[in-house]
Amino acid sequence: MDSMISIEEKKPSIGLADCPGYRFSATAADIRDTQSGQLDLALIVGKKSLKSAAVFTTNDVTAAPVDLCKDILKNRAEKIGGIVINSGNANACTGEPGKADAAEMSASAQVNTGIGLPFYVCSTGRIGRKLPIEKIISGIGDCAKKLDSSQSNAESVASAILTSDTCEKQVTVKLHYDNQTFTLAGIAKGAGMIEPNMATMLAFIVTDLDATHATLQESLNKANAKSFNAISIDGDMSTNDSVILLANGEAGVSIEDDSKLRQTFDQALCLICETLAHKIVSDGEKITKVVQLDIEGCRSSKDAESVARAIGNSLLVKTSFYGSDPNWGRIVDAAGYARIGLNINQLDLYYEDCPALLAGVAQEQYAQEWKSIVEKRTFTIRLNLNQGTHTYKLMTTDLSEAYVDFNKSE
Amino acid sequence: MDSMISIEEKKPSIGLADCPGYRFSATAADIRDTQSGQLDLALIVGKKSLKSAAVFTTNDVTAAPVDLCKDILKNRAEKIGGIVINSGNANACTGEPGKADAAEMSASAQVNTGIGLPFYVCSTGRIGRKLPIEKIISGIGDCAKKLDSSQSNAESVASAILTSDTCEKQVTVKLHYDNQTFTLAGIAKGAGMIEPNMATMLAFIVTDLDATHATLQESLNKANAKSFNAISIDGDMSTNDSVILLANGEAGVSIEDDSKLRQTFDQALCLICETLAHKIVSDGEKITKVVQLDIEGCRSSKDAESVARAIGNSLLVKTSFYGSDPNWGRIVDAAGYARIGLNINQLDLYYEDCPALLAGVAQEQYAQEWKSIVEKRTFTIRLNLNQGTHTYKLMTTDLSEAYVDFNKSE
Repeated sequence: MDSMISIEEKKPSIGLADCPGYRFSATAADIRDTQSGQLDLALIVGKKSLKSAAVFTTNDVTAAPVDLCKDILKNRAEKIGGIVINSGNANACTGEPGKADAAEMSASAQVNTGIGLPFYVCSTGRIGRKLPIEKIISGIGDCAKKLDSSQSNAESVASAILTSDTCEKQVTVKLHYDNQTFTLAGIAKGAGMIEPNMATMLAFIVTDLDATHATLQESLNKANAKSFNAISIDGDMSTNDSVILLANGEAGVSIEDDSKLRQTFDQALCLICETLAHKIVSDGEKITKVVQLDIEGCRSSKDAESVARAIGNSLLVKTSFYGSDPNWGRIVDAAGYARIGLNINQLDLYYEDCPALLAGVAQEQYAQEWKSIVEKRTFTIRLNLNQGTHTYKLMTTDLSEAYVDFNKSE
Repeated sequence: MDSMISIEEKKPSIGLADCPGYRFSATAADIRDTQSGQLDLALIVGKKSLKSAAVFTTNDVTAAPVDLCKDILKNRAEKIGGIVINSGNANACTGEPGKADAAEMSASAQVNTGIGLPFYVCSTGRIGRKLPIEKIISGIGDCAKKLDSSQSNAESVASAILTSDTCEKQVTVKLHYDNQTFTLAGIAKGAGMIEPNMATMLAFIVTDLDATHATLQESLNKANAKSFNAISIDGDMSTNDSVILLANGEAGVSIEDDSKLRQTFDQALCLICETLAHKIVSDGEKITKVVQLDIEGCRSSKDAESVARAIGNSLLVKTSFYGSDPNWGRIVDAAGYARIGLNINQLDLYYEDCPALLAGVAQEQYAQEWKSIVEKRTFTIRLNLNQGTHTYKLMTTDLSEAYVDFNKSE
């Protein structure tokens, strides 16, 4: 039976339009007040009621749309109309007017689409500015009129949610099961303020399978932990991060009653999330390197994660990546200040498969190999603490002069 | 009686030479193998047995000299000969040979000076390289022959301990008490890998008062918490940080028997440490701004410290300082991801005395004032969480493109 089950990333992907039973549209509402014609407002809707799951930033400071989404998730997650998204303004730190604006966006989408069910709201952009709500409401009206299932509309949504991203991020996974094919498709935006739990990142995933909110949420939590929460560009966690999963049941099959199908769905969802997370990191603001940190041999996965984050967020480690300098001393120093009780004399450190430290002793005879590895755009660093069996993987980046220049003002 | 007690920073300071009863010397041992003639090896010694206290990095990865110093502190802190210091090589991650080298430096100083008492050893520089121990032992011999109490020798020590610092850091505090004057004097080095608990920073403080190790340690712990542990340049904690306090009792007065004198000594020590810490931050690698973060109204000082560090280490906050951008949104976002349970609607935020947020509401009418404040080289940001009475002060810096360029390779 296993031979009849498989998942595969569809290439080329046409993004959300790969998944039956959804409609999309985007428009240029001039939220940035630049008259540039840039797409900045989007709708994702089902043809009927959707089931949903979502995860959000764990920042104490949450944007108004996040608060609204949390409320919808808690009370209405099995009867959702869709998602309305704007870029160019985060509607964060905007007080009561911000809450009212988020609610108005949701209500306007509900009414204008004629779906009559709650809409999630996501906003991304500068913090602390009031939304130009009239432009947005007018834009939602435009979007509602243009909704369809076309590839071009789906791609306009993938474009409208971007901020400092340089490209659209979309992925489709096909799930083959007993002569049937199901679909999961997703889009994301990222670029800056990227640190797990989560970062100024938005991701929207749709499927034509059916499941309860509880099942979808369990699957999304697992996939999220291994993907969006395991990346870091600048260590800054945003006020607006949201990942939303929608299920329309269009395929007429539920994952509830078939544990094998559910397991395969989980794998497919994980693949979607990991692929989008990788696209986010690879398009990080002004990065020149993507580095995977494999931390192994820890007493707990929490220890492993602490070490990974200390290394992945260290300015000195990141600048050495930028300079293609195989500076293992900075890596070990950062691992040490995670303060989980590591012992330098037990550390094995590798650039790809080439040893840098074995039992804490430097293997300088490989210095040329180290150098040729860290000169690549993408490479893996593996650190084994030899204290236990737990592991953590973190995808991180370098830190460039251009990042500083890019972020010195908004 | 209070009118007869005062402390004052002596200006100009001639550094360690201001304090009676110590001898100094430094030499160029060519530890960096550059034949540059740069001073890189130094001795600080008493004329007789010294009492001492010290604090060290809390990184799991400690350099060999730190391990040696901890052992001396634990067992011999009341009978110290002095300190031997080298720059240019951290003797960190150097395994058993590194431990042997540190022990040999200590023994060599003990023998060559003829003092016959244990010497603390401090090293600073690149991690992971074996010390050129023969050059160092030879240099210690040279230093031992040149020891004296002159200003020029004291200043050569302040110079020899530097790495990427651009200037010597020295301070003297005079303590006037009942017609007597006592002295505390200190030097420090910093520049990079600067994050509390502590950072690649070394500081050496001497006094002519007397006290037990236990008393000195208590005083140093308090002063350290408010000074060296309350600064951050790049958030990277080093393997080698050490602050050592020496007391020679040359003035014939102990602080043990006079609580008022002891209290004044504590104030003087705090002033020394704060002044040196400020000098370290102000000379941080390629910084252009020094920013004091005053976090107030917290439920605990630990909460306040978490918020201060989240803000002070945020790349997006630091780059906005660099760009003179009064981006309060990034400050609030960073405060939020400290995750101590703050409420945005209770936040008051000020640039100097100018409000940016009051009860979470932006005071945009002051935007011009914010801008003129953050354009200064030094300014204060005050954040009140209005949850309690606890506070924390952190001195931090901006992050410049030049920092990235400077650290991209060693």
